[in-house]
Amino acid sequence: MEATPELDPPARLLMGPGPSDVSPRVLRALAAPTVGHLDPYYLGVMNDTRRLLQHVFRTDNELTMPMSATGMAGMETCIVNLVEPGDEVLVGVNGVFGTRMCDVAERAGATVHRIETEWGKVFTPDEVKAGLDAHPKVKLVGLVHAETSTGAHQPLEGIGALARERDALLLVDCVTSLGGAPVEIDAWQIDAAYSGTQKCLSCPPGLSPVTFGERALARMDARTRKVQSWYLDLSMIRSYWGAERAYHHTAPVNMTYALREALRMVHEEGLEARFERHRRHHRALRAGLEALGLTYIPDHSLPMLNAVAIPDGVDDKAVRGALLREHGIEIGGGLGPFAGRAWRIGLMGASCSRHHVTALLGALGGLLGGAGDALSAADAAYA
Amino acid sequence: MEATPELDPPARLLMGPGPSDVSPRVLRALAAPTVGHLDPYYLGVMNDTRRLLQHVFRTDNELTMPMSATGMAGMETCIVNLVEPGDEVLVGVNGVFGTRMCDVAERAGATVHRIETEWGKVFTPDEVKAGLDAHPKVKLVGLVHAETSTGAHQPLEGIGALARERDALLLVDCVTSLGGAPVEIDAWQIDAAYSGTQKCLSCPPGLSPVTFGERALARMDARTRKVQSWYLDLSMIRSYWGAERAYHHTAPVNMTYALREALRMVHEEGLEARFERHRRHHRALRAGLEALGLTYIPDHSLPMLNAVAIPDGVDDKAVRGALLREHGIEIGGGLGPFAGRAWRIGLMGASCSRHHVTALLGALGGLLGGAGDALSAADAAYA
Repeated sequence: MEATPELDPPARLLMGPGPSDVSPRVLRALAAPTVGHLDPYYLGVMNDTRRLLQHVFRTDNELTMPMSATGMAGMETCIVNLVEPGDEVLVGVNGVFGTRMCDVAERAGATVHRIETEWGKVFTPDEVKAGLDAHPKVKLVGLVHAETSTGAHQPLEGIGALARERDALLLVDCVTSLGGAPVEIDAWQIDAAYSGTQKCLSCPPGLSPVTFGERALARMDARTRKVQSWYLDLSMIRSYWGAERAYHHTAPVNMTYALREALRMVHEEGLEARFERHRRHHRALRAGLEALGLTYIPDHSLPMLNAVAIPDGVDDKAVRGALLREHGIEIGGGLGPFAGRAWRIGLMGASCSRHHVTALLGALGGLLGGAGDALSAADAAYA
Repeated sequence: MEATPELDPPARLLMGPGPSDVSPRVLRALAAPTVGHLDPYYLGVMNDTRRLLQHVFRTDNELTMPMSATGMAGMETCIVNLVEPGDEVLVGVNGVFGTRMCDVAERAGATVHRIETEWGKVFTPDEVKAGLDAHPKVKLVGLVHAETSTGAHQPLEGIGALARERDALLLVDCVTSLGGAPVEIDAWQIDAAYSGTQKCLSCPPGLSPVTFGERALARMDARTRKVQSWYLDLSMIRSYWGAERAYHHTAPVNMTYALREALRMVHEEGLEARFERHRRHHRALRAGLEALGLTYIPDHSLPMLNAVAIPDGVDDKAVRGALLREHGIEIGGGLGPFAGRAWRIGLMGASCSRHHVTALLGALGGLLGGAGDALSAADAAYA
């Protein structure tokens, strides 16, 4: 077999839908010496990580931790632990991730009712209420806080109370929002949520933070059959994160180091300051993109994910390819019906800075024409 | 919230059942700058990793790759993709991991037949044949090549042919053996196998290499219903690893860097040299442990995992605690019926060296008495 060359990744500005740029601090933590998954030092790292996750999730939930797999496994964890075959669930579908939630729930044996709206739109509390009225046996409501496929920012206030009235749980996908916009697990009465590490937390991909409240725990405790996934079965994983420290699987030690460090940086910056940073650079990017003649797809845009329509006559792949090759900038293309029709420009965590905004507007403006106007508009927004 | 101290893991010699020590080269690769999971550079990293995994698995299987979760997810991946509800499977149970394979298969709806033998023993081909004779409808046979709970080394030659005669697939757990002892996927007619990164590959925990042959692919293609796990559904993951490069989940980019580097080191050393290194240090460790009066539990011991009985009157936790605290050496305790009765001493990958053997024998000999004799016995074995 021929030799494999030394690893030498190119320099990138990661401005797609994730992963985002990772701070050197986080990379250094990632590369700290591995210790055992039952080492007293590592148990302390787990406790720190839980406490820091509780802080960013704004929750007191004891069952708060990273699952040992990426964000989609977090979605599956929530569903397979909270749903039993035959349970009815209600899912808001307005993009890829709501669609996936339906698929995962169906694989878990659920009867899935969809409320749907156009990709890029969000649901009103009345629409959720109508869904619950139409399906009174629903035991779980799933909504996507940050629809990574469309950039839509779903308001959640009031939804938790609606679910509680019907004795349904509220499950929320906050993969893209956590650490970049408010996610108020306790105040919004969210019973379960999952996220990813590689978006606004700016940690490499590989783990999925999850959190479960008392009502979710009660639902798990009342199960009549085993969770279909052994790997994601929280009845066992809770014993590893709890006082028993019972071995379940070999934890991803170094990834947990990295997540802990990324969360320390979130805490040092402060949640409010971090959210304001995301809003500020979003406003400037938006001003610049609109100066280039690009229009935002969602009515309620996420600050950290900017989904814009590709103008007629512009070649999606040629532009993204030139950004990557000539400028080292990654932006995302569209998924599903948006393939070839949308760009998704991320401003997440360490990728949310003025130099990211300036570099992207300069490069994209150069390719589309209008760089000067775009940069002036951004500068005005910063002023 | 109080501040979280800087990450500062203690120095350890990792001589338990995994994770093993990780080379600085692998840690450096782990900390290389993150790129996107669809970046052309990362697609090349994926291709390199597949090719290097094919080399260590000794297979031409195209569907060879790391799953984005730890070894137990590799087990679950194999089972949920190869088994449909109602399928009969035959599992060899002689330790924790065979027991778990039954649990995972039952959760996938399989009817599980067990062949059992005492913990520490292995199965003969005749015992497997008798199991197949007793259950002629079996569609999958699961065996553990390296039973991490007992240190038993299951011979596999001839088993694949037995399975083929009955049109059953052979699934093998080689979590602990891969990279430290021969695993001959093609020559032994193994249809599917899974491993982990944190054993003899000496990469941090977090990924699970898997491989599937043509008969396994045909079984997947003939499925009548969706795989119950979305996250582990190979029908979609194949499209990401194949020419389509279809987005499924955000790959754990940095962990893949690390695995690629760990596999490069395996390739540079050479498989045969690496296996001989594991045998050599095992012989020396064994001589030393036996000089201390410790007896091996399995008849056929793995070289990389040495399971010995704890002598009467010796306090398991006190000894392991002293090794960790005073010497920075981690060894493993027993699982299940072996809890408090066995130690599991790993010599895996970067943890398989003369200084590991000497340090462990010196420290353990100091605690139990007899260090000088143990070290002399090991030195004699090296001579």
